[in-house]
Amino acid sequence: MGASRSPMSFSFNLCANLVNLGFSGEVYPVNPNADEIVGLKAYASLRDIEGDIDLVVSAVPAHATLGIMQECVEKKVKGVVIVSGGFSEEGEHGDKIQDEVAYLLKRNGVRAIGPNALSPINSSNNLAVSFVPIEKLARGGVSFVFQSGLYEPRLNWIVSDFHVGISKLIDLGNKMDINEVDALEYLAEDPDTEVIAIHLETVKGDGREFAQLLENTSRNKPIVVFKAGRTAAGAKAAASHTGSMARGSDAVFDAVLRQSRAVLAQTLEDFFDFAKAFEFLTPPKGNRIAVASLTGGEGVIATDICQRIGFSMATPNERTFTKLKAVFPAWEIPLNPFDLGVCVQFHSFDEVYSVFLESMLDDENVDCVVVGVPPFGPLLTTDEALAAFSLGKKKGKPVVLWPHAMSASLYAAVEKLESSGVPVFPSAARAIKALSVVYGYKTVGDGAT
Amino acid sequence: MGASRSPMSFSFNLCANLVNLGFSGEVYPVNPNADEIVGLKAYASLRDIEGDIDLVVSAVPAHATLGIMQECVEKKVKGVVIVSGGFSEEGEHGDKIQDEVAYLLKRNGVRAIGPNALSPINSSNNLAVSFVPIEKLARGGVSFVFQSGLYEPRLNWIVSDFHVGISKLIDLGNKMDINEVDALEYLAEDPDTEVIAIHLETVKGDGREFAQLLENTSRNKPIVVFKAGRTAAGAKAAASHTGSMARGSDAVFDAVLRQSRAVLAQTLEDFFDFAKAFEFLTPPKGNRIAVASLTGGEGVIATDICQRIGFSMATPNERTFTKLKAVFPAWEIPLNPFDLGVCVQFHSFDEVYSVFLESMLDDENVDCVVVGVPPFGPLLTTDEALAAFSLGKKKGKPVVLWPHAMSASLYAAVEKLESSGVPVFPSAARAIKALSVVYGYKTVGDGAT
Repeated sequence: MGASRSPMSFSFNLCANLVNLGFSGEVYPVNPNADEIVGLKAYASLRDIEGDIDLVVSAVPAHATLGIMQECVEKKVKGVVIVSGGFSEEGEHGDKIQDEVAYLLKRNGVRAIGPNALSPINSSNNLAVSFVPIEKLARGGVSFVFQSGLYEPRLNWIVSDFHVGISKLIDLGNKMDINEVDALEYLAEDPDTEVIAIHLETVKGDGREFAQLLENTSRNKPIVVFKAGRTAAGAKAAASHTGSMARGSDAVFDAVLRQSRAVLAQTLEDFFDFAKAFEFLTPPKGNRIAVASLTGGEGVIATDICQRIGFSMATPNERTFTKLKAVFPAWEIPLNPFDLGVCVQFHSFDEVYSVFLESMLDDENVDCVVVGVPPFGPLLTTDEALAAFSLGKKKGKPVVLWPHAMSASLYAAVEKLESSGVPVFPSAARAIKALSVVYGYKTVGDGAT
Repeated sequence: MGASRSPMSFSFNLCANLVNLGFSGEVYPVNPNADEIVGLKAYASLRDIEGDIDLVVSAVPAHATLGIMQECVEKKVKGVVIVSGGFSEEGEHGDKIQDEVAYLLKRNGVRAIGPNALSPINSSNNLAVSFVPIEKLARGGVSFVFQSGLYEPRLNWIVSDFHVGISKLIDLGNKMDINEVDALEYLAEDPDTEVIAIHLETVKGDGREFAQLLENTSRNKPIVVFKAGRTAAGAKAAASHTGSMARGSDAVFDAVLRQSRAVLAQTLEDFFDFAKAFEFLTPPKGNRIAVASLTGGEGVIATDICQRIGFSMATPNERTFTKLKAVFPAWEIPLNPFDLGVCVQFHSFDEVYSVFLESMLDDENVDCVVVGVPPFGPLLTTDEALAAFSLGKKKGKPVVLWPHAMSASLYAAVEKLESSGVPVFPSAARAIKALSVVYGYKTVGDGAT
């Protein structure tokens, strides 16, 4: 409803994405001023459509929304997404409209996302409700819930450069009907969802129910939670953009989280890093870590981070020592953290990194590996390196990488590594922190039950 | 000494960089097995060179170094850099060689950097001693001191993608002679150095002298300090790679730092971010900050960060409000944090961001500005936007940017912005933190004296 003919308009993409991504259902653009939109026949109103309608996406202005929703009720539509703004986030007048819409839909059993919300995105049938032209939709196990549209400007990053396949994405907006409890309930049961990442400003549903759901769901699926609007100024800003005042304190929220196995992200960087780590990695069996970098100095920094965060520096066995001696110069004893920079002065990068990876993954004294990789040429994407990474996966020994320096030319190499299941984080600190969160997430049976 | 003919060898670049970057002095490669290196006449030994020698760079193996240093003394060389490893970082035998070398040089008044150290780099005469082929050397005000070669794999990032012009770079290595006190003393007096960034694992010089120097120098030049090897495991790793055991506790080190105006970086990210912020920004006159982003949700997150870090959300004046109303839709009241995403649905990105920047920079209630910029198309590089940034500089109101999502295609836009003096940080958190450090750095006269 309110689909635009103009490719310059945001709402043009509401239809265009469905067509371009090949959504498996029927799409009916509704616009009384158009005959055709993105090659689809346009309809003057909902009443003119012959078939049944599962979902209506409404982009008409707030003041016209109630009328459209009445049409939805008559047409026996199952669900609606109200994309438009101008409701409870805009003060008393908008609040009144929202209440009327909510009352009408609830009385008639029509479920609603929004208002003031985009989404959903569902990679299993290529349903993507978005203002942003989406280039591709990679399937995967991470499902996102967002309080609001902060994901929109980074949507193409999420579906392309982030290299994490997504299952569902739900933007809640003003949470007139569907809220975080509904979203979590759905994702808990969704077989395609392996990891849940939730961004919230407020809890609008039943707090106890949310707490119970978090606790139960996080036993089976890793959950990452990022709570924004935690300061007084932040809460005020949150209230003005989704019309929801925070209820209860963040201390209560944090206590609820601690009762569960959900992981609290402190920053947006953490939020995406942790989701990525859970999607890519299986938890290491222990906390003994092997660190390699291209310089001794960065090895020291990585070691500080490992110790602060709870990892213990692994002491590799004699066999590993012997293997490493083949690539280390005579005057350098291979010690953890390993300074591979001295080796690449005498052997090829490929040989050095392959010997290192293979020997670590073969060593029963090593539980997980973090490697700083050279910014020169492609990162570790040789067949030998990829085979070693694959071996690590098989043995349940997670390997995480960070590039010593990122540059435009390394984008393709990072894509290749991540499509091979090896996550690359922007720095040693972020790689080690993400790994530690996966280590700390104990699956059921690890003494937690 | 020990310059290689082979472009595949690291030490080839010791000469190649000097030639390619156009070092303003004479370069004499010394290698008894070569006639010519990088187009320069090669010499069999130091004795064969006719002219005086200011600096010898020695890349010969540790066991041959004492002999070479004797030649340096005979030739009345003023300074040496010993690049090779195999000295005190390699145990008793190497330690003994290092002591002999140190004794010889000291007795004859020859100053030395290293062993186990590259550098120096001096952008004022294009002197660059490095194993890494350097693409270009941008002049600027930041001087770096590194304990060891952790900067090497990111050297091209530092001199190219970091977009911060450097003045000097000094790698200290084993600090047989020249240590952090000498480096700081030199940079304090260097007229080309405006910002000093020091990475340390140990303090090898006189601790009190270092403390005094830090205190005095940081009154006039911002100093960023990153101390690695702070944990037990990290200190052990540090000892094994530069042969220096930490003396004194980090508690003492931190207390020394607090006595000065030097800023302590907690991570490598902070280290480079803070150096960049000091190079690009003048301190804002107050802590009232205006925040804009492309989504309300990210505005909430940025607001949380601002409040936690000590900024206060600016309340722009009526004139600003009126100007902003021209790009905001009727139903949205322009409030700080500003959600520009609602504006770009009805006006062009260029118009919206220009109106926002100009009105903020013109508002006496706003001290500084942080803006999340669109990942679509080039970032804010229109003439209008660049003019607004330039106005901000003139008015002493720092503006910092972060992209909502980074992609390979935005590299050029970031380069353009940073070459116009507007720093772009990878996230809201990092942009605001870097700005806060510059705000916290009070120049002499700001009540600090």
